Amino acid sequence: MSILLTILGCHSATPRINAFPTSQYLEINNRHFLIDCGEGTQRQMRKYKVGFSKINHIFISHLHGDHFYGLVGLLATFGILNREKELHVYGPKGIKDVTLLQLKISQSHVKYTIIFHELVSKESELIFEDDKVSVRTIPLNHRVYTNGYLFTEKEKPRKLNMLNISGYPEISKADYLNLKAGKDILLDNGKTIKNSALTIDPPKPLSFAFCSDTCYKPDIVPIIKKVDLLYHEATFLEDKKELAKKTKHATAKEAALIAKEANAKQLIIGHYSGRYKDISLFKNEAETEFTNVELANPGAVFSVE
Amino acid sequence: MSILLTILGCHSATPRINAFPTSQYLEINNRHFLIDCGEGTQRQMRKYKVGFSKINHIFISHLHGDHFYGLVGLLATFGILNREKELHVYGPKGIKDVTLLQLKISQSHVKYTIIFHELVSKESELIFEDDKVSVRTIPLNHRVYTNGYLFTEKEKPRKLNMLNISGYPEISKADYLNLKAGKDILLDNGKTIKNSALTIDPPKPLSFAFCSDTCYKPDIVPIIKKVDLLYHEATFLEDKKELAKKTKHATAKEAALIAKEANAKQLIIGHYSGRYKDISLFKNEAETEFTNVELANPGAVFSVE
Repeated sequence: MSILLTILGCHSATPRINAFPTSQYLEINNRHFLIDCGEGTQRQMRKYKVGFSKINHIFISHLHGDHFYGLVGLLATFGILNREKELHVYGPKGIKDVTLLQLKISQSHVKYTIIFHELVSKESELIFEDDKVSVRTIPLNHRVYTNGYLFTEKEKPRKLNMLNISGYPEISKADYLNLKAGKDILLDNGKTIKNSALTIDPPKPLSFAFCSDTCYKPDIVPIIKKVDLLYHEATFLEDKKELAKKTKHATAKEAALIAKEANAKQLIIGHYSGRYKDISLFKNEAETEFTNVELANPGAVFSVE
Repeated sequence: MSILLTILGCHSATPRINAFPTSQYLEINNRHFLIDCGEGTQRQMRKYKVGFSKINHIFISHLHGDHFYGLVGLLATFGILNREKELHVYGPKGIKDVTLLQLKISQSHVKYTIIFHELVSKESELIFEDDKVSVRTIPLNHRVYTNGYLFTEKEKPRKLNMLNISGYPEISKADYLNLKAGKDILLDNGKTIKNSALTIDPPKPLSFAFCSDTCYKPDIVPIIKKVDLLYHEATFLEDKKELAKKTKHATAKEAALIAKEANAKQLIIGHYSGRYKDISLFKNEAETEFTNVELANPGAVFSVE
């Protein structure tokens, strides 16, 4: 069980020589997700060795260009590379039409199936689930309809306490599945052995929350409570608090307040406005409210074990 | 009078770490044009210091992704940078709808006017003209409707031969405009002085032809006859001649044949397939048919004085 997050791009607005628009590659419990896809993402994926074939699910937060203008190019490249596996794309309503029109007009006849999941709800909703991971939306507040995404590992089976189990020769391997599922054991003599005496707690499921773009929105706190890794946008510092409000972005301090209120384990900030030349100022400001802060940088990898 | 061509990207198909899809920046007779705009072009423009505000005309050859997926991002960035000047975009029919839909859905409310010139003709046509430069289409033969572009300086006024003029005190400054326009001078004594005795030929107008993507198409030769600088795609070498035919691309040898038949002064080749690791092979092959061959490379600048 682990989380590995690779930052592909973490700057706001326009691509620049050393500034790449938002995209992140998330490995969680052996699932592989791409989150947002600004222009140039496919090149960043190659640079940081993200296997194209591993991506089966792409989550787009909102339809500002710096979060999705790289999507069609990536999808076309998948086609050129003869992808056959179906691909799921999650994003705001409208993403399907614009993507399909671009693929059609460029005659990118991709052979694989693209399944669009267009989002419209203003409430948090479960949008993906398998035996390893679930994904919920985190409704954000930006100038356009925007969702963050909460990725959570599925509860693991309980671990067998083999030392204790060996004290009961009547317990056979056939009972192990029930034990892992948390069930008590009824012995032949009618005695019940509590599950807790025979198993130990599994590792706690880990979680990652991606929150970009948004103004300070404390009502997301219950959704991301105790998240292990929180990415929260910090486009501005407090010196531009009014501009942050006007453009519906957060300051570094506000990102840190969300992390503190949610009791997150670690905060990563990014989406820096190009006006700031020294991004260490973002860390300094966030650390006034929350201790465990890291700066997103292209190629940076964050892990939770 | 001069031509300065900066290669922003010159590789085919998909963007890679050191391979950028097609885009070129052309300065000709004090006019500034962008030709094709694959994904990442705006970043390449920043890298090679192409002033965004200088671009008033963008020419798109065809609607394959590696030639236009970077257009919407560039147009949105122009908006973010508060561009006010109108922008002209030339390209195949369909380019307007897809570009406007992308801008609309990303709520990129650009304040400047974008004037689309959608091309449908299969014949060469004049599509731009001012007092400095004219631009004609070069109908190409690719898998989709494709045009190359011929950029030609306008004929300059004749140059005054001041030494000879000084021999005729009757000729005043008021006559200079007529002399520059090639007219003879009628003196007060009824004698006519031939223009050729009073002026010298202006520099020959220079021209640049952009031909990508296309198979070998010798019927473009009359359009680009004696062009000073010819960019012609060379996606393959002769070892993949069949694949070139099938995908409607040219080999390096075929590009050189076009240059030879057109009596071009210099040939630049590019749009290399990613399968070739050593692009010097393209130059070697082209040089079997034409002597003055250069390889396009990102950041390479070619000039004609």
